[in-house]
Amino acid sequence: MPVSDDADIELFVFDWVPEMARGYVRDLRPRWAMEEAGIPYRTTPVRVGNKGDYLDLQPYGQVPAMIDDGVRVFESGAILLHLAEKSETLMPRDPTGRAATQSWLLCALNSIESFYFELFFIDAVYSDAAWAKEKRPIAEDFLRKRLQPVADALGARKWFAGPFTVADIAMATVLRDISRHLPMADFPALDAYLKRCLARPAFQHALDAQMADFTGTAPAGFDN
Amino acid sequence: MPVSDDADIELFVFDWVPEMARGYVRDLRPRWAMEEAGIPYRTTPVRVGNKGDYLDLQPYGQVPAMIDDGVRVFESGAILLHLAEKSETLMPRDPTGRAATQSWLLCALNSIESFYFELFFIDAVYSDAAWAKEKRPIAEDFLRKRLQPVADALGARKWFAGPFTVADIAMATVLRDISRHLPMADFPALDAYLKRCLARPAFQHALDAQMADFTGTAPAGFDN
Repeated sequence: MPVSDDADIELFVFDWVPEMARGYVRDLRPRWAMEEAGIPYRTTPVRVGNKGDYLDLQPYGQVPAMIDDGVRVFESGAILLHLAEKSETLMPRDPTGRAATQSWLLCALNSIESFYFELFFIDAVYSDAAWAKEKRPIAEDFLRKRLQPVADALGARKWFAGPFTVADIAMATVLRDISRHLPMADFPALDAYLKRCLARPAFQHALDAQMADFTGTAPAGFDN
Repeated sequence: MPVSDDADIELFVFDWVPEMARGYVRDLRPRWAMEEAGIPYRTTPVRVGNKGDYLDLQPYGQVPAMIDDGVRVFESGAILLHLAEKSETLMPRDPTGRAATQSWLLCALNSIESFYFELFFIDAVYSDAAWAKEKRPIAEDFLRKRLQPVADALGARKWFAGPFTVADIAMATVLRDISRHLPMADFPALDAYLKRCLARPAFQHALDAQMADFTGTAPAGFDN
Protein backbone atom coordinates (compact mmCIF):
# COMPACT_ATOMS: atom_id res chain seq x y z
CA MET A 1 0.00 0.00 0.00
CA PRO A 2 1.44 3.41 -0.97
CA VAL A 3 0.34 4.99 2.33
CA SER A 4 3.14 4.02 4.69
CA ASP A 5 4.22 5.73 7.92
CA ASP A 6 7.96 5.48 7.21
CA ALA A 7 7.82 6.65 3.57
CA ASP A 8 10.33 9.26 2.36
CA ILE A 9 7.60 11.21 0.58
CA GLU A 10 5.46 13.48 2.74
CA LEU A 11 2.22 14.68 1.14
CA PHE A 12 0.37 17.59 2.75
CA VAL A 13 -3.41 17.19 2.73
CA PHE A 14 -6.41 18.84 4.38
CA ASP A 15 -7.82 17.08 7.47
CA TRP A 16 -11.24 18.59 6.81
CA VAL A 17 -13.08 20.14 3.87
CA PRO A 18 -16.82 20.77 3.29
CA GLU A 19 -18.83 17.72 2.20
CA MET A 20 -19.13 18.89 -1.42
CA ALA A 21 -15.35 19.00 -1.80
CA ARG A 22 -14.60 15.58 -0.32
CA GLY A 23 -13.14 13.26 -2.91
CA TYR A 24 -12.33 16.25 -5.13
CA VAL A 25 -9.39 17.89 -3.33
CA ARG A 26 -6.38 18.06 -5.60
CA ASP A 27 -4.10 15.85 -3.51
CA LEU A 28 -6.15 13.17 -5.29
CA ARG A 29 -3.82 13.67 -8.26
CA PRO A 30 -0.50 12.78 -6.59
CA ARG A 31 -2.19 10.03 -4.54
CA TRP A 32 -3.46 8.47 -7.77
CA ALA A 33 -0.03 8.70 -9.40
CA MET A 34 1.66 7.09 -6.42
CA GLU A 35 -0.94 4.32 -6.35
CA GLU A 36 -0.32 3.67 -10.07
CA ALA A 37 3.44 3.47 -9.58
CA GLY A 38 3.52 1.84 -6.14
CA ILE A 39 5.42 4.76 -4.64
CA PRO A 40 4.98 4.86 -0.84
CA TYR A 41 4.01 8.13 0.84
CA ARG A 42 2.80 9.39 4.17
CA THR A 43 0.41 12.27 4.76
CA THR A 44 0.65 15.31 7.02
CA PRO A 45 -2.58 17.12 7.84
CA VAL A 46 -3.02 20.83 7.09
CA ARG A 47 -5.94 22.88 8.40
CA VAL A 48 -8.07 24.74 5.84
CA GLY A 49 -7.30 28.45 6.22
CA ASN A 50 -3.99 27.80 8.01
CA LYS A 51 -1.58 30.65 7.28
CA GLY A 52 1.42 29.62 9.37
CA ASP A 53 4.76 28.15 8.29
CA TYR A 54 2.93 26.06 5.73
CA LEU A 55 2.87 29.13 3.46
CA ASP A 56 6.60 28.58 2.95
CA LEU A 57 5.69 25.34 1.22
CA GLN A 58 2.52 26.46 -0.56
CA PRO A 59 2.01 30.21 -1.01
CA TYR A 60 -1.80 30.02 -0.89
CA GLY A 61 -2.03 27.60 2.03
CA GLN A 62 -3.70 25.12 -0.33
CA VAL A 63 -2.97 21.45 -0.90
CA PRO A 64 -1.26 19.46 -2.21
CA ALA A 65 2.35 20.18 -1.40
CA MET A 66 5.06 17.57 -1.07
CA ILE A 67 8.45 17.09 0.51
CA ASP A 68 10.35 14.26 -1.14
CA ASP A 69 13.55 13.49 0.73
CA GLY A 70 14.09 17.20 1.35
CA VAL A 71 12.93 18.40 -2.08
CA ARG A 72 9.90 20.68 -1.89
CA VAL A 73 7.25 20.72 -4.61
CA PHE A 74 3.84 22.39 -4.85
CA GLU A 75 1.07 22.66 -7.45
CA SER A 76 -0.57 19.36 -8.31
CA GLY A 77 0.70 19.60 -11.90
CA ALA A 78 4.30 20.09 -10.78
CA ILE A 79 3.99 17.23 -8.29
CA LEU A 80 2.71 14.96 -11.07
CA LEU A 81 5.69 15.91 -13.24
CA HIS A 82 8.06 15.34 -10.31
CA LEU A 83 6.59 11.89 -9.63
CA ALA A 84 6.64 11.04 -13.34
CA GLU A 85 10.46 11.09 -13.24
CA LYS A 86 10.37 8.24 -10.72
CA SER A 87 8.53 5.66 -12.76
CA GLU A 88 8.06 4.73 -16.39
CA THR A 89 4.51 3.76 -15.33
CA LEU A 90 3.76 7.47 -15.15
CA MET A 91 5.60 8.84 -18.21
CA PRO A 92 7.43 7.16 -21.10
CA ARG A 93 11.19 7.65 -21.18
CA ASP A 94 11.51 8.47 -24.91
CA PRO A 95 11.45 12.14 -25.97
CA THR A 96 8.22 11.79 -27.96
CA GLY A 97 6.37 10.20 -25.06
CA ARG A 98 7.74 12.71 -22.55
CA ALA A 99 6.72 15.64 -24.72
CA ALA A 100 3.24 14.23 -25.31
CA THR A 101 2.78 13.65 -21.58
CA GLN A 102 3.84 17.18 -20.70
CA SER A 103 1.75 18.70 -23.51
CA TRP A 104 -1.48 16.97 -22.51
CA LEU A 105 -0.91 17.57 -18.80
CA LEU A 106 -0.51 21.30 -19.44
CA CYS A 107 -3.49 21.24 -21.79
CA ALA A 108 -5.66 19.77 -19.03
CA LEU A 109 -4.56 22.35 -16.48
CA ASN A 110 -4.02 25.52 -18.52
CA SER A 111 -6.40 25.13 -21.47
CA ILE A 112 -9.33 23.29 -19.85
CA GLU A 113 -9.31 23.59 -16.06
CA SER A 114 -8.64 27.33 -16.39
CA PHE A 115 -12.03 27.72 -18.02
CA TYR A 116 -13.79 25.36 -15.64
CA PHE A 117 -13.05 27.44 -12.54
CA GLU A 118 -15.54 30.11 -13.66
CA LEU A 119 -18.36 27.59 -13.96
CA PHE A 120 -17.41 26.12 -10.60
CA PHE A 121 -17.59 29.48 -8.81
CA ILE A 122 -20.85 30.41 -10.51
CA ASP A 123 -22.50 27.15 -9.40
CA ALA A 124 -20.87 26.87 -5.97
CA VAL A 125 -20.70 30.46 -4.76
CA TYR A 126 -22.62 32.90 -6.95
CA SER A 127 -25.63 30.96 -8.22
CA ASP A 128 -28.07 33.54 -6.80
CA ALA A 129 -26.31 36.60 -8.24
CA ALA A 130 -27.98 38.34 -11.17
CA TRP A 131 -24.74 38.46 -13.16
CA ALA A 132 -24.21 34.74 -12.64
CA LYS A 133 -27.50 33.86 -14.32
CA GLU A 134 -26.46 35.85 -17.39
CA LYS A 135 -22.91 34.59 -17.34
CA ARG A 136 -23.49 30.89 -16.76
CA PRO A 137 -24.51 29.96 -20.35
CA ILE A 138 -21.53 31.96 -21.66
CA ALA A 139 -19.15 30.19 -19.30
CA GLU A 140 -20.61 26.79 -20.13
CA ASP A 141 -20.47 27.44 -23.86
CA PHE A 142 -16.86 28.54 -23.57
CA LEU A 143 -15.94 25.41 -21.64
CA ARG A 144 -17.70 23.23 -24.21
CA LYS A 145 -15.54 24.84 -26.88
CA ARG A 146 -12.47 23.81 -24.87
CA LEU A 147 -13.72 20.23 -24.57
CA GLN A 148 -14.80 19.43 -28.15
CA PRO A 149 -11.34 19.83 -29.76
CA VAL A 150 -9.82 17.62 -27.07
CA ALA A 151 -12.54 15.01 -27.64
CA ASP A 152 -11.74 15.17 -31.36
CA ALA A 153 -8.01 14.83 -30.67
CA LEU A 154 -8.54 11.79 -28.45
CA GLY A 155 -10.87 10.12 -30.95
CA ALA A 156 -10.68 6.35 -30.56
CA ARG A 157 -7.38 6.38 -28.69
CA LYS A 158 -7.32 4.94 -25.18
CA TRP A 159 -5.06 7.49 -23.45
CA PHE A 160 -3.80 10.92 -24.44
CA ALA A 161 -0.04 10.40 -24.63
CA GLY A 162 0.16 6.80 -25.87
CA PRO A 163 0.28 4.66 -22.71
CA PHE A 164 -1.49 5.77 -19.51
CA THR A 165 0.49 8.68 -18.00
CA VAL A 166 0.23 11.51 -15.49
CA ALA A 167 -1.39 13.49 -18.31
CA ASP A 168 -4.38 11.17 -17.98
CA ILE A 169 -4.45 11.73 -14.22
CA ALA A 170 -4.57 15.49 -14.82
CA MET A 171 -7.13 15.24 -17.63
CA ALA A 172 -9.40 12.72 -15.88
CA THR A 173 -9.51 14.69 -12.62
CA VAL A 174 -10.34 17.87 -14.54
CA LEU A 175 -13.07 16.11 -16.55
CA ARG A 176 -14.44 14.49 -13.39
CA ASP A 177 -14.77 17.93 -11.79
CA ILE A 178 -16.43 19.31 -14.93
CA SER A 179 -18.87 16.40 -15.06
CA ARG A 180 -20.50 17.79 -11.91
CA HIS A 181 -21.44 20.92 -13.87
CA LEU A 182 -22.30 19.71 -17.38
CA PRO A 183 -23.16 16.29 -18.80
CA MET A 184 -19.98 14.61 -20.04
CA ALA A 185 -22.23 12.34 -22.14
CA ASP A 186 -22.42 15.31 -24.55
CA PHE A 187 -18.82 14.37 -25.43
CA PRO A 188 -19.00 10.61 -25.97
CA ALA A 189 -15.24 10.13 -26.50
CA LEU A 190 -14.46 11.98 -23.25
CA ASP A 191 -17.28 10.26 -21.38
CA ALA A 192 -15.93 6.81 -22.29
CA TYR A 193 -12.37 7.98 -21.55
CA LEU A 194 -13.32 9.31 -18.12
CA LYS A 195 -15.06 6.05 -17.21
CA ARG A 196 -11.97 4.13 -18.40
CA CYS A 197 -9.73 6.27 -16.20
CA LEU A 198 -11.93 6.06 -13.11
CA ALA A 199 -12.23 2.27 -13.45
CA ARG A 200 -8.51 1.91 -12.70
CA PRO A 201 -7.98 0.37 -9.25
CA ALA A 202 -5.37 3.03 -8.43
CA PHE A 203 -7.98 5.76 -8.76
CA GLN A 204 -10.30 4.08 -6.28
CA HIS A 205 -7.42 3.48 -3.84
CA ALA A 206 -6.46 7.16 -4.07
CA LEU A 207 -10.04 8.26 -3.52
CA ASP A 208 -10.43 5.97 -0.49
CA ALA A 209 -7.14 7.26 0.92
CA GLN A 210 -8.22 10.88 0.57
CA MET A 211 -11.56 10.20 2.25
CA ALA A 212 -9.85 8.35 5.12
CA ASP A 213 -7.74 11.41 5.92
CA PHE A 214 -10.71 13.67 6.69
CA THR A 215 -10.41 13.06 10.42
CA GLY A 216 -10.55 16.72 11.52
CA THR A 217 -13.36 19.05 12.44
CA ALA A 218 -14.43 22.27 10.69
CA PRO A 219 -12.15 25.21 11.60
CA ALA A 220 -13.82 28.24 13.13
CA GLY A 221 -15.65 30.17 10.41
CA PHE A 222 -16.30 27.12 8.23
CA ASP A 223 -19.30 24.87 8.20
CA ASN A 224 -20.53 21.90 6.20
CA MET B 1 20.72 34.95 -33.29
CA PRO B 2 18.27 32.17 -32.31
CA VAL B 3 16.09 32.71 -35.40
CA SER B 4 17.90 30.68 -38.04
CA ASP B 5 16.53 29.18 -41.27
CA ASP B 6 18.29 25.84 -40.89
CA ALA B 7 17.49 25.28 -37.19
CA ASP B 8 16.21 21.86 -36.05
CA ILE B 9 13.50 23.45 -33.95
CA GLU B 10 10.37 24.59 -35.79
CA LEU B 11 8.12 26.98 -33.86
CA PHE B 12 4.59 27.56 -35.14
CA VAL B 13 3.42 31.18 -34.83
CA PHE B 14 0.59 33.33 -36.13
CA ASP B 15 1.36 35.49 -39.17
CA TRP B 16 -1.35 37.96 -38.16
CA VAL B 17 -3.24 38.84 -34.97
CA PRO B 18 -5.27 41.95 -34.06
CA GLU B 19 -3.22 44.98 -32.96
CA MET B 20 -4.08 44.58 -29.27
CA ALA B 21 -2.64 41.06 -29.21
CA ARG B 22 0.66 41.88 -30.94
CA GLY B 23 3.57 41.33 -28.59
CA TYR B 24 1.37 39.25 -26.31
CA VAL B 25 0.89 36.01 -28.25
CA ARG B 26 2.14 33.09 -26.23
CA ASP B 27 4.89 32.00 -28.62
CA LEU B 28 6.65 34.86 -26.82
CA ARG B 29 7.40 32.37 -24.04
CA PRO B 30 9.40 29.79 -26.02
CA ARG B 31 11.04 32.58 -28.07
CA TRP B 32 12.23 34.20 -24.83
CA ALA B 33 13.54 30.87 -23.49
CA MET B 34 15.43 30.15 -26.70
CA GLU B 35 16.91 33.67 -26.68
CA GLU B 36 18.07 33.16 -23.08
CA ALA B 37 19.72 29.83 -23.90
CA GLY B 38 20.96 30.62 -27.40
CA ILE B 39 18.93 27.77 -28.91
CA PRO B 40 18.36 28.35 -32.64
CA TYR B 41 14.84 28.01 -34.07
CA ARG B 42 12.92 28.77 -37.23
CA THR B 43 9.29 29.81 -37.45
CA THR B 44 6.42 28.48 -39.54
CA PRO B 45 3.40 30.74 -39.98
CA VAL B 46 -0.08 29.59 -39.01
CA ARG B 47 -3.26 31.47 -39.95
CA VAL B 48 -5.60 32.52 -37.13
CA GLY B 49 -8.68 30.33 -37.37
CA ASN B 50 -6.93 27.67 -39.48
CA LYS B 51 -8.47 24.28 -38.77
CA GLY B 52 -6.52 22.08 -41.16
CA ASP B 53 -3.76 19.57 -40.47
CA TYR B 54 -2.36 21.94 -37.87
CA LEU B 55 -5.00 20.62 -35.44
CA ASP B 56 -2.96 17.41 -35.27
CA LEU B 57 -0.22 19.47 -33.65
CA GLN B 58 -2.37 21.81 -31.55
CA PRO B 59 -5.97 20.73 -30.85
CA TYR B 60 -7.33 24.28 -30.65
CA GLY B 61 -5.45 25.63 -33.67
CA GLN B 62 -3.66 28.04 -31.33
CA VAL B 63 0.02 28.84 -31.02
CA PRO B 64 2.65 28.02 -29.98
CA ALA B 65 3.35 24.49 -31.02
CA MET B 66 6.81 23.10 -31.75
CA ILE B 67 8.47 20.29 -33.62
CA ASP B 68 11.95 19.61 -32.29
CA ASP B 69 13.80 17.11 -34.46
CA GLY B 70 10.58 15.14 -34.94
CA VAL B 71 9.31 15.53 -31.36
CA ARG B 72 5.99 17.36 -31.16
CA VAL B 73 5.11 19.62 -28.23
CA PHE B 74 2.24 22.02 -27.62
CA GLU B 75 1.09 24.29 -24.76
CA SER B 76 3.52 27.09 -23.96
CA GLY B 77 4.12 25.64 -20.48
CA ALA B 78 5.02 22.22 -21.86
CA ILE B 79 7.29 23.80 -24.47
CA LEU B 80 9.09 25.74 -21.73
CA LEU B 81 9.60 22.51 -19.77
CA HIS B 82 10.82 20.76 -22.92
CA LEU B 83 13.31 23.54 -23.65
CA ALA B 84 14.43 23.63 -20.00
CA GLU B 85 15.91 20.13 -20.42
CA LYS B 86 18.25 21.51 -23.08
CA SER B 87 20.05 24.14 -21.04
CA GLU B 88 21.01 24.75 -17.43
CA THR B 89 20.38 28.42 -18.25
CA LEU B 90 16.68 27.61 -18.17
CA MET B 91 16.44 25.21 -15.20
CA PRO B 92 18.95 24.07 -12.58
CA ARG B 93 20.02 20.43 -12.78
CA ASP B 94 19.72 19.61 -9.06
CA PRO B 95 16.42 18.09 -7.80
CA THR B 96 15.62 21.08 -5.57
CA GLY B 97 16.07 23.58 -8.39
CA ARG B 98 14.12 21.44 -10.86
CA ALA B 99 11.23 21.06 -8.44
CA ALA B 100 11.17 24.78 -7.64
CA THR B 101 11.19 25.63 -11.36
CA GLN B 102 8.31 23.28 -12.13
CA SER B 103 6.33 24.42 -9.07
CA TRP B 104 6.54 28.11 -9.88
CA LEU B 105 5.90 27.55 -13.58
CA LEU B 106 2.73 25.63 -12.79
CA CYS B 107 1.78 28.25 -10.20
CA ALA B 108 2.00 30.98 -12.85
CA LEU B 109 -0.12 29.07 -15.35
CA ASN B 110 -2.64 27.17 -13.19
CA SER B 111 -2.97 29.36 -10.06
CA ILE B 112 -2.62 32.85 -11.52
CA GLU B 113 -3.20 32.90 -15.28
CA SER B 114 -6.33 30.77 -14.81
CA PHE B 115 -7.91 33.61 -12.88
CA TYR B 116 -6.66 36.30 -15.24
CA PHE B 117 -8.52 34.94 -18.27
CA GLU B 118 -11.84 36.05 -16.80
CA LEU B 119 -10.65 39.64 -16.40
CA PHE B 120 -9.23 39.57 -19.92
CA PHE B 121 -12.50 38.46 -21.49
CA ILE B 122 -14.52 40.97 -19.47
CA ASP B 123 -12.32 43.84 -20.62
CA ALA B 124 -11.68 42.68 -24.18
CA VAL B 125 -14.99 41.12 -25.22
CA TYR B 126 -17.82 41.76 -22.74
CA SER B 127 -17.15 45.22 -21.32
CA ASP B 128 -20.59 46.48 -22.39
CA ALA B 129 -22.54 43.55 -20.93
CA ALA B 130 -24.55 44.21 -17.77
CA TRP B 131 -23.20 41.08 -16.06
CA ALA B 132 -19.63 42.14 -16.83
CA LYS B 133 -20.03 45.42 -14.92
CA GLU B 134 -21.15 43.48 -11.83
CA LYS B 135 -18.57 40.75 -12.29
CA ARG B 136 -15.49 42.83 -13.00
CA PRO B 137 -14.76 43.92 -9.40
CA ILE B 138 -15.27 40.34 -8.23
CA ALA B 139 -12.89 39.02 -10.87
CA GLU B 140 -10.31 41.70 -10.11
CA ASP B 141 -10.55 41.10 -6.37
CA PHE B 142 -10.12 37.37 -6.90
CA LEU B 143 -7.06 37.92 -9.07
CA ARG B 144 -5.55 40.27 -6.48
CA LYS B 145 -5.94 37.48 -3.93
CA ARG B 146 -3.95 35.23 -6.23
CA LEU B 147 -1.19 37.84 -6.62
CA GLN B 148 -0.59 38.94 -3.01
CA PRO B 149 0.57 35.54 -1.67
CA VAL B 150 2.96 35.21 -4.60
CA ALA B 151 4.30 38.72 -3.94
CA ASP B 152 4.80 37.71 -0.30
CA ALA B 153 6.54 34.49 -1.31
CA LEU B 154 8.91 36.34 -3.64
CA GLY B 155 9.73 39.00 -1.06
CA ALA B 156 13.19 40.39 -1.69
CA ARG B 157 14.34 37.46 -3.82
CA LYS B 158 15.36 38.19 -7.37
CA TRP B 159 13.81 35.20 -9.16
CA PHE B 160 11.26 32.60 -8.10
CA ALA B 161 13.26 29.37 -8.26
CA GLY B 162 16.75 30.59 -7.25
CA PRO B 163 18.48 31.51 -10.52
CA PHE B 164 16.48 32.86 -13.48
CA THR B 165 14.50 29.95 -15.00
CA VAL B 166 11.62 29.16 -17.31
CA ALA B 167 9.38 29.69 -14.26
CA ASP B 168 10.27 33.38 -14.47
CA ILE B 169 9.41 33.43 -18.17
CA ALA B 170 5.99 31.97 -17.36
CA MET B 171 5.44 34.24 -14.36
CA ALA B 172 6.66 37.43 -16.05
CA THR B 173 4.55 36.91 -19.18
CA VAL B 174 1.48 36.27 -17.02
CA LEU B 175 2.15 39.37 -14.89
CA ARG B 176 2.80 41.46 -18.01
CA ASP B 177 -0.60 40.44 -19.39
CA ILE B 178 -2.25 41.21 -16.04
CA SER B 179 -0.57 44.62 -15.87
CA ARG B 180 -2.77 45.72 -18.80
CA HIS B 181 -5.84 45.20 -16.58
CA LEU B 182 -4.77 46.27 -13.07
CA PRO B 183 -1.86 48.36 -11.79
CA MET B 184 1.04 46.08 -10.91
CA ALA B 185 2.37 48.93 -8.74
CA ASP B 186 -0.20 47.77 -6.17
CA PHE B 187 2.17 44.83 -5.63
CA PRO B 188 5.58 46.47 -5.31
CA ALA B 189 7.56 43.22 -5.13
CA LEU B 190 5.93 41.94 -8.31
CA ASP B 191 6.20 45.30 -10.03
CA ALA B 192 9.95 45.42 -9.43
CA TYR B 193 10.26 41.76 -10.40
CA LEU B 194 8.38 42.27 -13.66
CA LYS B 195 10.57 45.24 -14.60
CA ARG B 196 13.66 43.14 -13.78
CA CYS B 197 12.44 40.34 -16.04
CA LEU B 198 11.49 42.61 -18.94
CA ALA B 199 14.85 44.39 -18.79
CA ARG B 200 16.60 41.19 -19.85
CA PRO B 201 17.91 41.55 -23.41
CA ALA B 202 16.49 38.12 -24.31
CA PHE B 203 12.96 39.36 -23.62
CA GLN B 204 13.37 42.29 -25.98
CA HIS B 205 14.85 40.06 -28.69
CA ALA B 206 11.91 37.67 -28.33
CA LEU B 207 9.42 40.51 -28.54
CA ASP B 208 11.10 41.96 -31.64
CA ALA B 209 11.13 38.52 -33.25
CA GLN B 210 7.42 38.01 -32.60
CA MET B 211 6.57 41.43 -34.04
CA ALA B 212 8.70 40.78 -37.14
CA ASP B 213 6.70 37.65 -37.96
CA PHE B 214 3.38 39.49 -38.34
CA THR B 215 3.74 39.67 -42.11
CA GLY B 216 0.26 38.38 -42.99
CA THR B 217 -3.08 40.04 -43.56
CA ALA B 218 -6.28 39.59 -41.57
CA PRO B 219 -8.12 36.38 -42.53
CA ALA B 220 -11.73 36.76 -43.71
CA GLY B 221 -13.97 37.49 -40.75
CA PHE B 222 -11.27 39.19 -38.69
CA ASP B 223 -10.40 42.84 -38.56
CA ASN B 224 -8.04 45.07 -36.65
